[in-house]
Amino acid sequence: MTSADDPRLADFARLREVELRKSLEAEHGLFIAEGEKVIRRALATGYPPRALMLTERRLPAFADLDVPKYVVPEEVAEAVTGFAVHRGALASMSRLPLPAVPALLAPARRILILEDLVDHGNVGAIFRCAAALGVDAVILSPRCADPLYRRAVKVSMGAVFAIPYARMTNWYAGLEEVREAGFTLLALTPNRAAEPIDAVGMGERAALMLGSEGDGLSSRWLREADRAVRIPMSERAMAMGVDSLNVVAAAAIACHSLVAGED
Amino acid sequence: MTSADDPRLADFARLREVELRKSLEAEHGLFIAEGEKVIRRALATGYPPRALMLTERRLPAFADLDVPKYVVPEEVAEAVTGFAVHRGALASMSRLPLPAVPALLAPARRILILEDLVDHGNVGAIFRCAAALGVDAVILSPRCADPLYRRAVKVSMGAVFAIPYARMTNWYAGLEEVREAGFTLLALTPNRAAEPIDAVGMGERAALMLGSEGDGLSSRWLREADRAVRIPMSERAMAMGVDSLNVVAAAAIACHSLVAGED
Repeated sequence: MTSADDPRLADFARLREVELRKSLEAEHGLFIAEGEKVIRRALATGYPPRALMLTERRLPAFADLDVPKYVVPEEVAEAVTGFAVHRGALASMSRLPLPAVPALLAPARRILILEDLVDHGNVGAIFRCAAALGVDAVILSPRCADPLYRRAVKVSMGAVFAIPYARMTNWYAGLEEVREAGFTLLALTPNRAAEPIDAVGMGERAALMLGSEGDGLSSRWLREADRAVRIPMSERAMAMGVDSLNVVAAAAIACHSLVAGED
Repeated sequence: MTSADDPRLADFARLREVELRKSLEAEHGLFIAEGEKVIRRALATGYPPRALMLTERRLPAFADLDVPKYVVPEEVAEAVTGFAVHRGALASMSRLPLPAVPALLAPARRILILEDLVDHGNVGAIFRCAAALGVDAVILSPRCADPLYRRAVKVSMGAVFAIPYARMTNWYAGLEEVREAGFTLLALTPNRAAEPIDAVGMGERAALMLGSEGDGLSSRWLREADRAVRIPMSERAMAMGVDSLNVVAAAAIACHSLVAGED
Protein backbone atom coordinates (compact mmCIF):
# COMPACT_ATOMS: atom_id res chain seq x y z
CA MET A 1 0.00 0.00 0.00
CA THR A 2 1.20 3.44 -0.81
CA SER A 3 -1.56 5.71 0.45
CA ALA A 4 -1.88 6.71 4.08
CA ASP A 5 -5.56 7.43 3.43
CA ASP A 6 -6.46 3.84 2.54
CA PRO A 7 -9.52 3.05 4.67
CA ARG A 8 -8.21 -0.44 5.41
CA LEU A 9 -5.54 1.22 7.56
CA ALA A 10 -8.12 2.95 9.77
CA ASP A 11 -7.30 0.78 12.81
CA PHE A 12 -3.80 2.26 12.81
CA ALA A 13 -4.61 5.92 12.25
CA ARG A 14 -3.28 8.81 14.36
CA LEU A 15 -2.00 6.71 17.23
CA ARG A 16 -0.71 9.72 19.13
CA GLU A 17 -4.12 11.38 19.41
CA VAL A 18 -5.28 10.09 22.77
CA GLU A 19 -8.89 11.26 22.70
CA LEU A 20 -9.46 10.15 19.13
CA ARG A 21 -7.95 6.74 19.82
CA LYS A 22 -9.93 6.24 23.01
CA SER A 23 -13.24 6.65 21.22
CA LEU A 24 -12.15 4.73 18.11
CA GLU A 25 -10.87 1.79 20.16
CA ALA A 26 -13.95 1.69 22.35
CA GLU A 27 -16.27 1.82 19.37
CA HIS A 28 -14.52 -0.96 17.48
CA GLY A 29 -13.41 -2.99 20.50
CA LEU A 30 -9.80 -3.01 19.42
CA PHE A 31 -6.36 -2.19 20.73
CA ILE A 32 -2.89 -1.84 19.23
CA ALA A 33 0.17 -3.97 19.99
CA GLU A 34 3.61 -2.90 18.75
CA GLY A 35 6.59 -5.05 17.89
CA GLU A 36 6.83 -8.77 17.30
CA LYS A 37 7.49 -9.80 20.90
CA VAL A 38 4.51 -7.92 22.34
CA ILE A 39 2.23 -9.00 19.49
CA ARG A 40 3.19 -12.63 20.14
CA ARG A 41 2.40 -12.24 23.82
CA ALA A 42 -1.05 -10.86 22.98
CA LEU A 43 -1.69 -13.76 20.60
CA ALA A 44 -0.49 -16.33 23.14
CA THR A 45 -2.92 -14.90 25.68
CA GLY A 46 -5.80 -15.43 23.28
CA TYR A 47 -6.51 -11.95 21.91
CA PRO A 48 -7.81 -12.37 18.33
CA PRO A 49 -5.80 -10.40 15.77
CA ARG A 50 -7.72 -8.12 13.37
CA ALA A 51 -4.95 -6.93 11.06
CA LEU A 52 -1.25 -6.21 10.81
CA MET A 53 0.43 -3.15 9.37
CA LEU A 54 4.10 -3.80 8.75
CA THR A 55 7.10 -3.05 6.62
CA GLU A 56 8.17 -5.53 3.95
CA ARG A 57 11.10 -6.70 6.02
CA ARG A 58 8.83 -7.88 8.87
CA LEU A 59 6.44 -9.87 6.70
CA PRO A 60 8.17 -13.29 7.00
CA ALA A 61 8.01 -13.16 10.82
CA PHE A 62 4.21 -13.29 10.67
CA ALA A 63 3.80 -15.88 7.91
CA ASP A 64 1.83 -18.15 10.26
CA LEU A 65 -0.90 -15.57 10.92
CA ASP A 66 -4.05 -15.73 8.86
CA VAL A 67 -5.17 -12.08 9.03
CA PRO A 68 -5.01 -9.17 6.60
CA LYS A 69 -1.44 -7.90 6.38
CA TYR A 70 -0.93 -4.40 5.09
CA VAL A 71 2.60 -3.90 3.87
CA VAL A 72 3.62 -0.26 3.79
CA PRO A 73 6.82 1.74 3.31
CA GLU A 74 8.10 3.42 6.46
CA GLU A 75 6.94 6.85 5.26
CA VAL A 76 3.38 5.59 4.88
CA ALA A 77 3.47 3.94 8.30
CA GLU A 78 4.58 7.25 9.75
CA ALA A 79 1.93 9.20 7.84
CA VAL A 80 -0.80 6.85 9.08
CA THR A 81 0.23 6.58 12.71
CA GLY A 82 1.82 9.95 13.29
CA PHE A 83 5.20 8.65 14.43
CA ALA A 84 8.19 6.65 13.20
CA VAL A 85 7.30 2.97 13.55
CA HIS A 86 10.71 1.70 14.59
CA ARG A 87 9.81 -1.85 15.30
CA GLY A 88 8.21 -2.26 11.89
CA ALA A 89 5.09 -4.15 12.97
CA LEU A 90 1.78 -3.03 14.47
CA ALA A 91 -1.15 -5.32 15.13
CA SER A 92 -4.72 -4.34 15.77
CA MET A 93 -6.32 -6.92 18.03
CA SER A 94 -9.84 -7.47 19.31
CA ARG A 95 -10.52 -6.85 22.95
CA LEU A 96 -12.09 -9.64 24.99
CA PRO A 97 -14.81 -9.22 27.59
CA LEU A 98 -13.21 -8.45 30.97
CA PRO A 99 -13.97 -10.84 33.81
CA ALA A 100 -16.40 -9.70 36.48
CA VAL A 101 -14.77 -8.73 39.78
CA PRO A 102 -15.98 -11.80 41.73
CA ALA A 103 -14.62 -14.18 39.08
CA LEU A 104 -11.29 -12.36 39.18
CA LEU A 105 -11.09 -12.50 42.96
CA ALA A 106 -12.05 -16.12 43.46
CA PRO A 107 -8.62 -17.69 42.82
CA ALA A 108 -6.52 -14.68 43.91
CA ARG A 109 -4.61 -14.04 47.13
CA ARG A 110 -2.59 -10.94 46.37
CA ILE A 111 -4.11 -8.18 44.25
CA LEU A 112 -3.68 -4.52 43.37
CA ILE A 113 -6.48 -1.98 43.16
CA LEU A 114 -5.63 1.11 41.11
CA GLU A 115 -7.68 4.24 41.74
CA ASP A 116 -7.88 6.79 38.94
CA LEU A 117 -4.34 6.60 37.58
CA VAL A 118 -4.29 8.88 34.55
CA ASP A 119 -0.93 8.14 32.93
CA HIS A 120 -0.96 5.15 30.59
CA GLY A 121 2.78 4.71 30.96
CA ASN A 122 2.45 4.41 34.73
CA VAL A 123 -0.37 1.86 34.38
CA GLY A 124 1.82 -0.19 32.03
CA ALA A 125 4.85 0.04 34.31
CA ILE A 126 2.79 -1.01 37.35
CA PHE A 127 1.37 -4.01 35.47
CA ARG A 128 4.93 -4.97 34.53
CA CYS A 129 6.02 -4.88 38.18
CA ALA A 130 2.90 -6.68 39.37
CA ALA A 131 3.26 -9.47 36.81
CA ALA A 132 6.98 -9.97 37.37
CA LEU A 133 6.66 -10.04 41.14
CA GLY A 134 3.70 -12.42 41.23
CA VAL A 135 0.65 -10.31 42.02
CA ASP A 136 -2.38 -12.42 41.06
CA ALA A 137 -4.76 -9.82 39.62
CA VAL A 138 -5.50 -6.11 39.25
CA ILE A 139 -8.76 -4.24 39.76
CA LEU A 140 -9.19 -0.82 38.16
CA SER A 141 -11.38 1.96 39.47
CA PRO A 142 -14.05 3.09 37.00
CA ARG A 143 -11.93 6.05 35.84
CA CYS A 144 -8.48 4.43 35.86
CA ALA A 145 -6.54 4.61 32.57
CA ASP A 146 -6.90 1.68 30.15
CA PRO A 147 -4.17 -1.02 30.35
CA LEU A 148 -4.72 -1.89 26.68
CA TYR A 149 -4.06 1.63 25.48
CA ARG A 150 -1.00 1.53 23.20
CA ARG A 151 1.42 3.25 25.52
CA ALA A 152 0.41 1.09 28.50
CA VAL A 153 0.87 -2.08 26.43
CA LYS A 154 4.27 -0.86 25.25
CA VAL A 155 5.64 0.22 28.64
CA SER A 156 4.38 -3.01 30.21
CA MET A 157 6.25 -4.98 27.52
CA GLY A 158 3.16 -7.13 27.19
CA ALA A 159 2.70 -7.75 30.91
CA VAL A 160 -0.83 -6.31 30.63
CA PHE A 161 -1.68 -9.59 28.87
CA ALA A 162 -0.06 -11.71 31.57
CA ILE A 163 -2.04 -10.60 34.58
CA PRO A 164 -5.84 -10.80 34.76
CA TYR A 165 -7.69 -7.61 35.49
CA ALA A 166 -11.22 -6.32 35.86
CA ARG A 167 -12.83 -2.93 36.08
CA MET A 168 -15.03 -1.93 38.98
CA THR A 169 -18.33 -0.58 37.78
CA ASN A 170 -19.21 1.21 40.99
CA TRP A 171 -16.62 3.33 42.75
CA TYR A 172 -18.79 3.66 45.88
CA ALA A 173 -19.50 -0.03 46.44
CA GLY A 174 -16.40 -1.48 44.78
CA LEU A 175 -14.13 -1.84 47.79
CA GLU A 176 -16.82 -3.51 49.86
CA GLU A 177 -17.13 -6.21 47.23
CA VAL A 178 -13.40 -6.94 47.55
CA ARG A 179 -13.57 -7.03 51.34
CA GLU A 180 -16.54 -9.38 51.24
CA ALA A 181 -14.44 -11.75 49.17
CA GLY A 182 -12.12 -12.03 52.16
CA PHE A 183 -9.43 -9.49 51.32
CA THR A 184 -7.72 -7.17 53.77
CA LEU A 185 -7.72 -3.71 52.17
CA LEU A 186 -4.33 -1.98 52.48
CA ALA A 187 -4.16 1.68 51.44
CA LEU A 188 -0.69 2.83 50.40
CA THR A 189 -0.09 6.38 51.59
CA PRO A 190 2.86 8.66 52.36
CA ASN A 191 1.22 9.50 55.69
CA ARG A 192 3.77 8.99 58.46
CA ALA A 193 1.10 7.72 60.83
CA ALA A 194 0.55 4.66 58.62
CA GLU A 195 2.19 1.31 59.43
CA PRO A 196 5.44 0.35 57.65
CA ILE A 197 4.33 -2.00 54.90
CA ASP A 198 6.81 -4.76 55.77
CA ALA A 199 5.57 -4.92 59.34
CA VAL A 200 1.92 -5.52 58.47
CA GLY A 201 0.46 -8.98 58.84
CA MET A 202 -1.49 -9.23 55.60
CA GLY A 203 -3.41 -12.40 56.19
CA GLU A 204 -4.37 -14.94 53.60
CA ARG A 205 -5.81 -12.48 51.10
CA ALA A 206 -4.62 -8.92 50.69
CA ALA A 207 -5.49 -6.09 48.31
CA LEU A 208 -3.07 -3.19 47.97
CA MET A 209 -4.72 0.08 46.93
CA LEU A 210 -2.67 2.60 44.92
CA GLY A 211 -3.89 6.12 44.20
CA SER A 212 -3.38 8.57 41.40
CA GLU A 213 -0.06 10.17 40.51
CA GLY A 214 -0.84 13.54 42.03
CA ASP A 215 -3.30 13.24 44.87
CA GLY A 216 -2.93 9.64 45.95
CA LEU A 217 -5.99 7.74 47.13
CA SER A 218 -9.29 9.55 47.58
CA SER A 219 -10.26 10.35 51.15
CA ARG A 220 -13.25 8.04 50.79
CA TRP A 221 -11.09 5.06 49.86
CA LEU A 222 -8.57 5.91 52.58
CA ARG A 223 -11.39 5.78 55.12
CA GLU A 224 -12.73 2.52 53.75
CA ALA A 225 -9.39 0.71 53.91
CA ASP A 226 -8.69 -1.76 56.72
CA ARG A 227 -5.15 -0.46 57.26
CA ALA A 228 -3.04 2.39 55.98
CA VAL A 229 0.47 1.29 55.03
CA ARG A 230 3.54 3.30 54.03
CA ILE A 231 7.00 2.73 52.63
CA PRO A 232 9.50 3.80 55.30
CA MET A 233 11.32 6.96 54.26
CA SER A 234 14.64 8.27 55.43
CA GLU A 235 14.59 10.85 58.25
CA ARG A 236 17.36 12.76 56.52
CA ALA A 237 15.44 12.82 53.25
CA MET A 238 12.37 14.12 55.06
CA ALA A 239 14.43 16.93 56.56
CA MET A 240 15.66 17.85 53.08
CA GLY A 241 12.25 17.60 51.43
CA VAL A 242 13.24 14.76 49.08
CA ASP A 243 11.15 12.11 50.79
CA SER A 244 8.86 11.06 47.97
CA LEU A 245 8.97 8.22 45.47
CA ASN A 246 7.37 8.26 42.06
CA VAL A 247 4.27 6.12 41.76
CA VAL A 248 6.02 3.32 39.86
CA ALA A 249 8.91 3.05 42.33
CA ALA A 250 6.42 3.03 45.20
CA ALA A 251 4.31 0.40 43.46
CA ALA A 252 7.38 -1.77 42.83
CA ILE A 253 8.38 -1.75 46.49
CA ALA A 254 4.81 -2.25 47.66
CA CYS A 255 4.19 -5.18 45.27
CA HIS A 256 7.41 -6.80 46.45
CA SER A 257 6.32 -6.44 50.08
CA LEU A 258 2.80 -7.62 49.28
CA VAL A 259 4.04 -10.83 47.68
CA ALA A 260 6.88 -11.39 50.16
CA GLY A 261 4.28 -11.18 52.93
CA GLU A 262 2.36 -14.12 51.50
CA ASP A 263 1.92 -17.00 53.95
CA MET B 1 16.68 40.64 26.84
CA THR B 2 15.19 40.10 23.46
CA SER B 3 17.89 38.28 21.49
CA ALA B 4 18.49 34.57 21.79
CA ASP B 5 22.03 35.15 20.54
CA ASP B 6 23.06 37.33 23.47
CA PRO B 7 26.38 35.85 24.66
CA ARG B 8 25.37 36.31 28.30
CA LEU B 9 22.83 33.54 27.78
CA ALA B 10 25.48 31.03 26.68
CA ASP B 11 25.12 28.91 29.84
CA PHE B 12 21.53 28.14 28.81
CA ALA B 13 22.03 27.42 25.12
CA ARG B 14 20.73 24.35 23.30
CA LEU B 15 19.87 22.32 26.39
CA ARG B 16 18.59 19.40 24.35
CA GLU B 17 21.88 18.76 22.59
CA VAL B 18 23.45 16.18 24.84
CA GLU B 19 26.96 16.07 23.37
CA LEU B 20 27.24 19.83 23.10
CA ARG B 21 26.03 20.31 26.67
CA LYS B 22 28.36 17.65 28.07
CA SER B 23 31.44 19.41 26.72
CA LEU B 24 30.16 22.90 27.54
CA GLU B 25 29.29 21.96 31.12
CA ALA B 26 32.59 20.15 31.66
CA GLU B 27 34.58 23.05 30.26
CA HIS B 28 32.85 25.69 32.36
CA GLY B 29 32.19 23.52 35.42
CA LEU B 30 28.49 24.28 35.43
CA PHE B 31 25.15 22.53 35.46
CA ILE B 32 21.53 23.57 34.97
CA ALA B 33 18.71 23.40 37.50
CA GLU B 34 15.11 23.95 36.42
CA GLY B 35 12.21 25.32 38.40
CA GLU B 36 12.15 27.17 41.70
CA LYS B 37 11.93 24.14 43.98
CA VAL B 38 14.90 22.33 42.44
CA ILE B 39 16.96 25.54 42.22
CA ARG B 40 16.31 26.17 45.92
CA ARG B 41 17.45 22.64 46.77
CA ALA B 42 20.69 23.17 44.86
CA LEU B 43 21.29 26.46 46.66
CA ALA B 44 20.53 24.94 50.06
CA THR B 45 23.09 22.21 49.37
CA GLY B 46 25.74 24.84 48.73
CA TYR B 47 26.09 24.94 44.95
CA PRO B 48 27.05 28.50 43.96
CA PRO B 49 24.68 30.05 41.42
CA ARG B 50 26.19 31.59 38.28
CA ALA B 51 23.14 33.14 36.64
CA LEU B 52 19.38 32.88 36.26
CA MET B 53 17.37 33.01 33.06
CA LEU B 54 13.71 33.57 33.80
CA THR B 55 10.48 35.09 32.67
CA GLU B 56 9.34 38.39 34.15
CA ARG B 57 6.70 36.68 36.25
CA ARG B 58 9.30 34.62 38.14
CA LEU B 59 11.61 37.49 38.98
CA PRO B 60 10.17 38.31 42.44
CA ALA B 61 10.67 34.72 43.64
CA PHE B 62 14.44 35.15 43.34
CA ALA B 63 14.77 38.67 44.73
CA ASP B 64 17.10 37.42 47.47
CA LEU B 65 19.70 36.08 45.04
CA ASP B 66 22.63 38.27 44.15
CA VAL B 67 23.50 36.88 40.71
CA PRO B 68 22.91 38.10 37.15
CA LYS B 69 19.25 37.61 36.26
CA TYR B 70 18.39 37.53 32.59
CA VAL B 71 14.72 38.26 32.06
CA VAL B 72 13.47 36.96 28.73
CA PRO B 73 10.10 36.50 27.01
CA GLU B 74 9.02 32.86 26.66
CA GLU B 75 9.84 32.84 22.94
CA VAL B 76 13.42 33.88 23.64
CA ALA B 77 13.77 31.27 26.39
CA GLU B 78 12.58 28.66 23.91
CA ALA B 79 14.89 29.93 21.17
CA VAL B 80 17.88 29.79 23.52
CA THR B 81 17.23 26.42 25.14
CA GLY B 82 15.47 24.58 22.34
CA PHE B 83 12.32 23.76 24.30
CA ALA B 84 9.38 25.41 26.02
CA VAL B 85 10.54 26.45 29.49
CA HIS B 86 7.33 25.73 31.37
CA ARG B 87 8.55 26.40 34.84
CA GLY B 88 9.82 29.81 33.88
CA ALA B 89 13.16 29.67 35.69
CA LEU B 90 16.51 28.12 34.86
CA ALA B 91 19.65 28.50 36.93
CA SER B 92 23.19 27.79 35.88
CA MET B 93 25.17 26.72 38.92
CA SER B 94 28.83 25.98 39.53
CA ARG B 95 29.81 22.41 40.17
CA LEU B 96 31.76 21.60 43.32
CA PRO B 97 34.70 19.22 43.56
CA LEU B 98 33.40 15.69 44.18
CA PRO B 99 34.60 13.96 47.33
CA ALA B 100 37.19 11.22 46.95
CA VAL B 101 35.84 7.70 47.38
CA PRO B 102 37.45 7.05 50.80
CA ALA B 103 36.00 10.27 52.23
CA LEU B 104 32.58 9.31 50.90
CA LEU B 105 32.77 5.81 52.36
CA ALA B 106 34.03 6.71 55.82
CA PRO B 107 30.67 7.64 57.40
CA ALA B 108 28.47 5.40 55.19
CA ARG B 109 26.85 2.05 55.92
CA ARG B 110 24.55 1.50 52.95
CA ILE B 111 25.67 2.60 49.51
CA LEU B 112 24.90 2.09 45.82
CA ILE B 113 27.48 1.57 43.12
CA LEU B 114 26.22 2.33 39.59
CA GLU B 115 28.10 0.75 36.70
CA ASP B 116 27.84 2.45 33.32
CA LEU B 117 24.21 3.56 33.37
CA VAL B 118 23.70 5.56 30.19
CA ASP B 119 20.26 7.10 30.65
CA HIS B 120 20.27 10.37 32.62
CA GLY B 121 16.61 9.91 33.52
CA ASN B 122 17.35 6.53 35.08
CA VAL B 123 20.27 7.95 37.06
CA GLY B 124 18.02 10.72 38.36
CA ALA B 125 15.22 8.30 39.25
CA ILE B 126 17.63 6.00 41.09
CA PHE B 127 19.06 8.92 43.08
CA ARG B 128 15.49 9.89 44.00
CA CYS B 129 14.78 6.38 45.30
CA ALA B 130 18.11 6.13 47.09
CA ALA B 131 17.69 9.49 48.82
CA ALA B 132 14.08 8.89 49.86
CA LEU B 133 14.78 5.42 51.20
CA GLY B 134 17.88 6.38 53.15
CA VAL B 135 20.86 5.10 51.17
CA ASP B 136 23.92 6.96 52.49
CA ALA B 137 25.96 7.53 49.34
CA VAL B 138 26.39 6.61 45.67
CA ILE B 139 29.55 5.69 43.80
CA LEU B 140 29.59 5.99 40.00
CA SER B 141 31.70 3.93 37.65
CA PRO B 142 34.04 6.00 35.48
CA ARG B 143 31.61 5.87 32.53
CA CYS B 144 28.30 6.21 34.37
CA ALA B 145 26.03 9.07 33.26
CA ASP B 146 26.35 12.41 35.10
CA PRO B 147 23.85 13.00 37.96
CA LEU B 148 24.10 16.77 37.42
CA TYR B 149 23.08 16.57 33.79
CA ARG B 150 19.83 18.54 33.39
CA ARG B 151 17.54 15.58 32.84
CA ALA B 152 18.97 13.66 35.79
CA VAL B 153 18.53 16.68 38.06
CA LYS B 154 14.96 17.12 36.86
CA VAL B 155 13.86 13.48 37.18
CA SER B 156 15.48 13.25 40.61
CA MET B 157 13.50 16.35 41.67
CA GLY B 158 16.67 17.63 43.26
CA ALA B 159 17.54 14.41 45.10
CA VAL B 160 20.92 14.41 43.31
CA PHE B 161 21.81 17.27 45.66
CA ALA B 162 20.61 15.41 48.75
CA ILE B 163 22.81 12.33 48.57
CA PRO B 164 26.61 12.50 48.45
CA TYR B 165 28.31 10.80 45.54
CA ALA B 166 31.76 10.23 44.13
CA ARG B 167 33.15 8.93 40.89
CA MET B 168 35.56 6.02 40.75
CA THR B 169 38.60 6.88 38.74
CA ASN B 170 39.66 3.31 38.09
CA TRP B 171 37.12 0.74 36.99
CA TYR B 172 39.56 -2.14 37.58
CA ALA B 173 40.58 -1.31 41.12
CA GLY B 174 37.46 0.56 42.22
CA LEU B 175 35.53 -2.28 43.83
CA GLU B 176 38.52 -3.44 45.83
CA GLU B 177 38.75 0.01 47.38
CA VAL B 178 35.14 -0.29 48.56
CA ARG B 179 35.69 -3.77 49.95
CA GLU B 180 38.79 -2.65 51.82
CA ALA B 181 36.65 -0.02 53.51
CA GLY B 182 34.67 -2.86 55.04
CA PHE B 183 31.73 -3.14 52.65
CA THR B 184 30.13 -6.39 51.52
CA LEU B 185 29.72 -6.13 47.74
CA LEU B 186 26.27 -7.27 46.59
CA ALA B 187 25.76 -7.63 42.83
CA LEU B 188 22.12 -7.29 41.73
CA THR B 189 21.40 -9.71 38.91
CA PRO B 190 18.39 -11.45 37.35
CA ASN B 191 20.30 -14.74 37.56
CA ARG B 192 18.07 -17.33 39.25
CA ALA B 193 21.05 -18.89 40.99
CA ALA B 194 21.58 -15.71 43.02
CA GLU B 195 20.26 -15.37 46.57
CA PRO B 196 16.94 -13.60 47.19
CA ILE B 197 17.91 -10.12 48.31
CA ASP B 198 15.74 -10.12 51.42
CA ALA B 199 17.35 -13.32 52.69
CA VAL B 200 20.92 -12.04 52.57
CA GLY B 201 22.65 -11.03 55.79
CA MET B 202 24.24 -7.80 54.69
CA GLY B 203 26.46 -7.08 57.65
CA GLU B 204 27.33 -3.70 59.02
CA ARG B 205 28.32 -2.13 55.72
CA ALA B 206 26.86 -3.12 52.39
CA ALA B 207 27.29 -1.84 48.83
CA LEU B 208 24.66 -2.72 46.25
CA MET B 209 25.96 -2.81 42.68
CA LEU B 210 23.55 -1.97 39.83
CA GLY B 211 24.44 -2.49 36.18
CA SER B 212 23.51 -0.79 32.96
CA GLU B 213 20.01 -0.75 31.50
CA GLY B 214 20.72 -3.31 28.81
CA ASP B 215 23.43 -5.70 29.84
CA GLY B 216 23.43 -5.43 33.61
CA LEU B 217 26.72 -5.65 35.48
CA SER B 218 29.91 -6.48 33.62
CA SER B 219 31.19 -10.03 34.05
CA ARG B 220 34.27 -8.67 35.77
CA TRP B 221 32.24 -6.88 38.44
CA LEU B 222 29.94 -9.88 38.85
CA ARG B 223 33.01 -12.02 39.56
CA GLU B 224 34.44 -9.50 42.00
CA ALA B 225 31.26 -9.22 44.07
CA ASP B 226 31.02 -11.02 47.41
CA ARG B 227 27.46 -12.21 46.75
CA ALA B 228 25.04 -12.20 43.86
CA VAL B 229 21.54 -11.16 44.90
CA ARG B 230 18.26 -11.14 42.99
CA ILE B 231 14.72 -9.87 43.38
CA PRO B 232 12.44 -12.91 43.55
CA MET B 233 10.30 -13.21 40.43
CA SER B 234 7.01 -14.99 39.96
CA GLU B 235 7.19 -18.53 38.53
CA ARG B 236 4.13 -17.80 36.43
CA ALA B 237 5.71 -14.63 35.03
CA MET B 238 8.85 -16.56 34.16
CA ALA B 239 6.77 -19.11 32.27
CA MET B 240 5.15 -16.29 30.32
CA GLY B 241 8.38 -14.41 29.63
CA VAL B 242 7.34 -11.29 31.55
CA ASP B 243 9.78 -11.79 34.40
CA SER B 244 11.83 -8.63 34.16
CA LEU B 245 11.67 -5.29 35.94
CA ASN B 246 12.92 -2.02 34.55
CA VAL B 247 16.12 -0.76 36.12
CA VAL B 248 14.38 1.88 38.25
CA ALA B 249 11.77 -0.52 39.65
CA ALA B 250 14.52 -3.02 40.43
CA ALA B 251 16.63 -0.31 42.06
CA ALA B 252 13.67 0.84 44.17
CA ILE B 253 13.04 -2.65 45.53
CA ALA B 254 16.73 -3.30 46.05
CA CYS B 255 17.31 0.01 47.88
CA HIS B 256 14.35 -0.74 50.11
CA SER B 257 15.77 -4.17 50.95
CA LEU B 258 19.26 -2.76 51.42
CA VAL B 259 18.09 -0.21 53.97
CA ALA B 260 15.55 -2.53 55.64
CA GLY B 261 18.40 -5.01 56.15
CA GLU B 262 20.37 -2.50 58.21
CA ASP B 263 21.27 -3.69 61.68
